Amino acid sequence: MSRGRSHTSNQPENIGRLLLRAQRDFDAELNARLGERGYPDVRLAHSALFAHIDPEGTRSSELAERAGMTKQGMGQLVADLEEKGYVERVEDPADRRAKLVRLTKKGWQHIRDARVIIGEIEEAYAQRLGDGRLETLRAILKDFPPR
Amino acid sequence: MSRGRSHTSNQPENIGRLLLRAQRDFDAELNARLGERGYPDVRLAHSALFAHIDPEGTRSSELAERAGMTKQGMGQLVADLEEKGYVERVEDPADRRAKLVRLTKKGWQHIRDARVIIGEIEEAYAQRLGDGRLETLRAILKDFPPR
Repeated sequence: MSRGRSHTSNQPENIGRLLLRAQRDFDAELNARLGERGYPDVRLAHSALFAHIDPEGTRSSELAERAGMTKQGMGQLVADLEEKGYVERVEDPADRRAKLVRLTKKGWQHIRDARVIIGEIEEAYAQRLGDGRLETLRAILKDFPPR
Repeated sequence: MSRGRSHTSNQPENIGRLLLRAQRDFDAELNARLGERGYPDVRLAHSALFAHIDPEGTRSSELAERAGMTKQGMGQLVADLEEKGYVERVEDPADRRAKLVRLTKKGWQHIRDARVIIGEIEEAYAQRLGDGRLETLRAILKDFPPR
């Protein structure tokens, strides 16, 4: 986790490094809390799948497109979460040659728990930043990428 | 590059995902511009070294500590940038058994060019976000991690 200020004037803290530091802090908070709540095997990387899967299941290629990942990258996430019991691959009723990735009961429970945990992190950030600054931050970030 | 909005209500856009999306946009902008300016072989990952190296050179273990990386991770960055001609490993005058990582002429030129490019990205963001919102964003992010 990089929290170091630059020791030289090579690259003063630009917006890219500031974003990276904040994102890594969120990631560390999330992983620590997921571990405490019985999810030592789920990391932020997995949220690319959890965030984009439909209640009735979604094809892996479609998940990759929604998450902006390669098919191979999403395939690895699917395989990993399948092995851990969070998703299962089932026949697509619309096309028997295709497979849908679908949440298991454990996967659904994880989504509920993760939502609570993320809410706790946001609440802690809001209190520590004060003055509605988390909501200001959120509003500006929602305009990214600015065009 | 994930710019997708969530297609389900599993995980509405939380602050972690918003930070990640903004950070990835910066990363993509930086890599595109570095490529155009003759640095197709330098990526944001390398900035962990460029940002923390002293003018007179710095030990690899110290770079790792400053960047919040493992010694192995920094060792790989050093080896990669040495192969590409941006840094060289020289004897430490203070301890002949130790090595310093030092910028080459090419490495110094890269730092100057990267600083210009980052300034251009920030200027583009500032104009597109409008109303001093980039500076507001920067001020809030400087308080991360909030304690």
